[in-house]
Order: sequence, then C-alpha cells, then structure tokens
Amino acid sequence: MLEPLPSRQIRGLARTFYRRGWMEGTAGNLSIRQGDTLYITASGRPKGTLSREDILTIPLNGAPPVSSGGRSPSAETSIHQAIYRLAPDTAAVLHIHTIESALVSERLGPDLPLPPLEVLKGLGIPDPCVPTSIPIFENDLTVSDIAKKITSRLSGPPSPVPVLLIRHHGTTAWGKSLEEAVRHLELAEYCFRFILGRERLP
Amino acid sequence: MLEPLPSRQIRGLARTFYRRGWMEGTAGNLSIRQGDTLYITASGRPKGTLSREDILTIPLNGAPPVSSGGRSPSAETSIHQAIYRLAPDTAAVLHIHTIESALVSERLGPDLPLPPLEVLKGLGIPDPCVPTSIPIFENDLTVSDIAKKITSRLSGPPSPVPVLLIRHHGTTAWGKSLEEAVRHLELAEYCFRFILGRERLP
Amino acid sequence: MLEPLPSRQIRGLARTFYRRGWMEGTAGNLSIRQGDTLYITASGRPKGTLSREDILTIPLNGAPPVSSGGRSPSAETSIHQAIYRLAPDTAAVLHIHTIESALVSERLGPDLPLPPLEVLKGLGIPDPCVPTSIPIFENDLTVSDIAKKITSRLSGPPSPVPVLLIRHHGTTAWGKSLEEAVRHLELAEYCFRFILGRERLP
Amino acid sequence: MLEPLPSRQIRGLARTFYRRGWMEGTAGNLSIRQGDTLYITASGRPKGTLSREDILTIPLNGAPPVSSGGRSPSAETSIHQAIYRLAPDTAAVLHIHTIESALVSERLGPDLPLPPLEVLKGLGIPDPCVPTSIPIFENDLTVSDIAKKITSRLSGPPSPVPVLLIRHHGTTAWGKSLEEAVRHLELAEYCFRFILGRERLP
Repeated sequence: MLEPLPSRQIRGLARTFYRRGWMEGTAGNLSIRQGDTLYITASGRPKGTLSREDILTIPLNGAPPVSSGGRSPSAETSIHQAIYRLAPDTAAVLHIHTIESALVSERLGPDLPLPPLEVLKGLGIPDPCVPTSIPIFENDLTVSDIAKKITSRLSGPPSPVPVLLIRHHGTTAWGKSLEEAVRHLELAEYCFRFILGRERLP
Repeated sequence: MLEPLPSRQIRGLARTFYRRGWMEGTAGNLSIRQGDTLYITASGRPKGTLSREDILTIPLNGAPPVSSGGRSPSAETSIHQAIYRLAPDTAAVLHIHTIESALVSERLGPDLPLPPLEVLKGLGIPDPCVPTSIPIFENDLTVSDIAKKITSRLSGPPSPVPVLLIRHHGTTAWGKSLEEAVRHLELAEYCFRFILGRERLP
Repeated sequence: MLEPLPSRQIRGLARTFYRRGWMEGTAGNLSIRQGDTLYITASGRPKGTLSREDILTIPLNGAPPVSSGGRSPSAETSIHQAIYRLAPDTAAVLHIHTIESALVSERLGPDLPLPPLEVLKGLGIPDPCVPTSIPIFENDLTVSDIAKKITSRLSGPPSPVPVLLIRHHGTTAWGKSLEEAVRHLELAEYCFRFILGRERLP
Repeated sequence: MLEPLPSRQIRGLARTFYRRGWMEGTAGNLSIRQGDTLYITASGRPKGTLSREDILTIPLNGAPPVSSGGRSPSAETSIHQAIYRLAPDTAAVLHIHTIESALVSERLGPDLPLPPLEVLKGLGIPDPCVPTSIPIFENDLTVSDIAKKITSRLSGPPSPVPVLLIRHHGTTAWGKSLEEAVRHLELAEYCFRFILGRERLP
C-alpha cells in the first residue's frame, strides 16, 4: 500500500525540525487531521529517522488505541485532540521542544507579550503595534490535565495567535493547513529568539 | 518554456536564505532586474520551497499587477522599485527578516554606526576606520510610505553602504550584480552579529 | 569483507556529531559493544571523515592493543571500559567535546543540578520536578586516573542519569542501545544549553 | 588537464567554511604549498562557489603575479608567504573571518590567553593547564606591513600555537598538513567560542 500523504508529510517535517534542534532526543509530536482521522507520531521514536510504522492513525475524538504494531500514539495525543476540538478548521498541530520556548516560558506570567515585529503579520496580527500575547500553561505529569486547562482557557474568545506554550516544556502551533501551521510555529520561535536576544542586551 | 535564469536564481537564493533562518514563515522578498522588468517573489509563499509560479514579473516602473495566476507580487514591491530608481545600476534587491536586524534596529537612532571591521571593505568602504553607518527607517503599515521615506532620504548624496534597515522588520541590500547584492547582505548581517556580540560582553 | 554494522554506525554518528560542532578537530570518541568486543574510534582522526580503518576492535576487558594498522585506539579507551563494567547492560558509550559542556562544567561543584524540564523524562527521570544532577569529574592528564575516579564514584548507587561531565573537557553518555545513548546525549546537551541560556538572562 | 589535488582541496574546504559562516561575503583566503609553489584563492571571489579558475598558483617566494586569467591572488598573499617562511614545514595556511575572532581580538592585549581546555592538546599543548596564548596583531590597510609585523614577532622563539589573530579582522592557522591546519583552526575557534561564552556568564 502506498504511504498516505499525511504520513509522508509528518515524517519529512519531523526530519527537518530534528535537524533544526527542535525535536532532540525523541521529543515533540506532530499531527495532521484528515476528516475524522488523526495521523500522529508514535511515542518515544527518534524524530530525525521516523519510519512509516512510526506514524499512527487514531480517531479525532475518543480514546486513542493503546498501541498499534508495538507502538503507542504520542503521550500528548489529548492535547492535539483538544486543539482540533477548540478550532474545528485546524488541519495540523505541531508541538516541539526548543530551548527558547523553555526559556521564555520559565520567567514570565500566564501570558508572553509579543514584541511589535513585522513578522507578527504572518501570525494573523494585522498591526504589529497592537499588544498581543501567547498563553502559557503550567506543565503537569498528567497530560490530560494540561489538555483540560487548554480547553478551559481557550474555549472562551479564541486566542488571537494560534500558538501556546507549556512551561518548561515546549511550543504548540496549529493552522488551517500544514503550511500555515509551520508558518505559525516558525514565527512564534522567531519571536522567542528576539525576546531572549533583547533581554540579553544591556 | 524554459524557466528564465533570474527566476531560477531567486528560487535558489530563497532556499539558501530560508535554511539560514533569514526568511522564516514566508518572510522577506527578493528581486532581480532585467532591463525594464523585475522578477520578484510572490507574497506569502514559503521561501524554502518556492515553485516557478511563485516568481512574478512586473514592470520596473508603474503599479504592479494586482495578481497573476492567483499570486500577488510581494507587498513590499514599492520598496524594491524605489531602490532601483535611486540607484539605476542596481541589478538585484534582497530583503530578509533576521533576528539580528530586528535587534540592532530597535535600540539605536536613525543610523546604525558600523564597527571598524576588515569586512567593511566588501561593503565598498576602503578604510574600515573611517566612521560609516547604515540608515534605519521606521516601519509603517503602509508600505508605500516606507518607500517614500527611503526615496526622500536616499535621493540626496548616495548612501555610502548599499544597505538599509527597517525598524523591527529587516535588512535590505542591493548591488550591481546578484553576487554583489548577496555579498553586501552577508556582510551587513556579519556586522550586526558583531555589534550584538560586543554589546553582550561585560 | 563487509564492514560490520557497529563500524558503519560509529562512522555515521561521528559525521553527524562533527557537523553539529560536537567533535571539532578530531575531539571525542565513540564506542559500541558487541559481546566481549568494543568497536571504538581511533585516536586523533578527523571525526567528519572517518574511514573504515579508523574504527578499531578491542577486548571489552584488559589492555587494548597499542596500535592496529598504524592506528591506536582512543586515548580515553579506559573511560569507555569503566562505564561498560559499571553498567553491564550498556551497548554504546559516546564522548563529545561541546562548548556548552566545557562551560557548565567549569563553574559548578561536583554535580550539575538539572532544571525541571519536560525533556528529563527522556533521560529516565519520571518526574522532572524531583531534583536530579549529573556528576562532574576533574580532568586529568592521566586518563586512567579519570577512569578510576569514575569507577569509584559510580560503583555505589547507580547514577540516576546515564551521563557524566569531565571538567573543561566534555560530556559522556551511555545507553542500553545506540539509539538510547544518542537520546541521552542529545538531552544532556539540551539541558546544558538551557542552563547557560538561563544564566545569561538578567 | 585534470584539476590538481590542492586546487580541489581548497575549493572543497572553502565551501565547507563558507557554510559554517567563516567566509562570508568573499572574505578569507586559503593556500596549500606544493614544493616551491603556492595554490591560493583569488581575491574577491565568493568562497561558497569557487570555480577552478579561482585557484591561482604563485611562487612561494617573490612577488606574486598581479593577475592571471582576469583574477588576482588574494590581497593577503604576503601574510601566507611570511608564514611559510617562518615555519618551513608548513603545508597549508588558512585565514578566515569569524565573528568570534573579531570579538576576542578587539578587547584584549597583544596576546589572547587560552583557557585550560582538553582540546588544547590538539593544538600541540601537552598540558592544557600550562598558560599559553595566541598573538594578536593590529590590522593595517597595508597588508605587507601586517606581514612584516608577523615576521618580526614570530621569527624569535616559535609561537607555541600555530595560530594568530589580526584585530577586527580574523584568524590564521597553519599546519604540516592540510588536515593538521584544519584541526588547528577548528580548535582555535572552539577556544574563542568558549572564551566569549564564559565572559557572558554572570
């Protein structure tokens, strides 16, 4: 059987992100939605060299199967599912572990204010000078509790930016297409690098 | 039809710059002049994987067509046109969004003084110890207003260095050949990294 | 004769690590155990371009041969042997010289406390908030003395994290498979980058 | 005619160094000695894409030809010649422009003391704890004057480390083989990154 396109896309993107240092040591997880099915990375697999068997399909809603072909879906599947429910036009959810996301999430409050950079336009902010921010969630050993906090906080008025941070953990971005989700992720990380660079200047 | 050389050159350069982190999330735009025609990147396309359709041709002067084959020329086309008019022997204009350009443009005045580095020779400065600087322009939601400010300020005595900064936005460099424009851009970014590195030392 | 798998794996990994800047100027050494035999990098060879002759086989225990085909096994072979003895289920030992490991090992005590990052899970720490640390050993011109200090300190209760630091020198990580050893190394270096990044914030 | 090996080696190395950001914007120059002939990079050519015509041959001693096939040998040829004369067993001289070398050469005296790192062994220092340093020379618009200062200072007892710095300019390293010269250069740059990293910690 031919490998489905979402599976190939996830493997290609994981390799790219791994090479950028965004998915070190099997960290992070990526998913693409197709109808009521999620394609998602298996838990604990090295992201630079995913094989076809490392991409699992699970139902968009309901409990994921515990394992398939000796592999389990990402331990953070419930966070992906929560985001697809909160923003029903979402086609892809990307979660990575960067040093920069761990650093900006450590020191700041429940939100990370974004600087007035031109690149904010690519995050859906028409005027970079209007104050905007990214929500930060506490990390938790029980992943489903992180998912519940995300659902609770983001089910009100939608987040102005399709990105969230989990403290000491990483960045999650989403979009109406895989290309858009990648753009949101790249630009969020760009902002984090700028914020840290600015704080390091005297 | 064979793909024209400028189109291939722009796509190759965009891929290289994307890999360097200089064109994250569809940011930036590149153009090459051939006679009275500009080859320029389309708006909002991911720069690491431009297709042939993502390079548009527009007239050097006058309003660009609003769209072509479902794509619009870069929103910053008027800045490219302004530079080709100000420096008529210009063959290429390159505009990128680096963290470093956003950082050095944030904190300083209307000009960024350059340090006395040997590499300034490659920017056309024969003696690196003679004080020189790069102009900084305010960012503006109306791109044509940025273009007007550039035209107004640079139509006097020509800038000693073929590079300018837009605050919180990015670097623009140009040259009499594509190779020269790339050299100017690389060396400007080199200077920005040096300036930031020096400010971070105690 | 076909090149044995461990030899090919070491050469591929050395090339990857060299490209990351982890094995500059012939620095570092990598080994894989197969039964009672160690495959190990030869001393003083450039790690980006190892040839098949640069991977030597030596006995797991006892003195290594002084040279083979004009090459000597890594000067730090005794450290590899010590770790295979301390943790008998170890399949691979990886030793690299990063700037970050040299920096974090310089300023701190006999242990490097790790920050409460999600990625600690991949180092075998179930709860990132439980304090844990990596042992730091003094560097020594006599490598076998470093090996003795490692044996002495780690032969008590096993280190909670399969990683150690040698001051002003580098990182050593190990695992029950090559894949696991790579994961441990990547995540240790991730922690070092985070620690340094945090110290540089005001 | 087949391309001579030194020419191919220089082009390959220039491409590698360019990709590392060590030869931005045509900066730097590389040479290999073969008997009484030097193979050296032409002036002002982009180092990532050198063609065969960009490698010139000049006599080891005496004035280099002003140009050959429309190209001139590196403007810094006299520095290369000075080093080959000072250390007659030298087979290769490598000169690059890194941000780090510009930064460490700016702030310090006539010498850069090296930190007690294990990697110093690869620079020919048997005991990293014995204080050692790299000489720093003032930059000068007249390159032959830099060459004279190098000759004057290094013709006494030989430099303990086959590396020198030119202030605000770059690093020069040499060795008895091309492989050794590359190792010296990589490890000098490693030390510079460590020195800067240490100064940036509180």
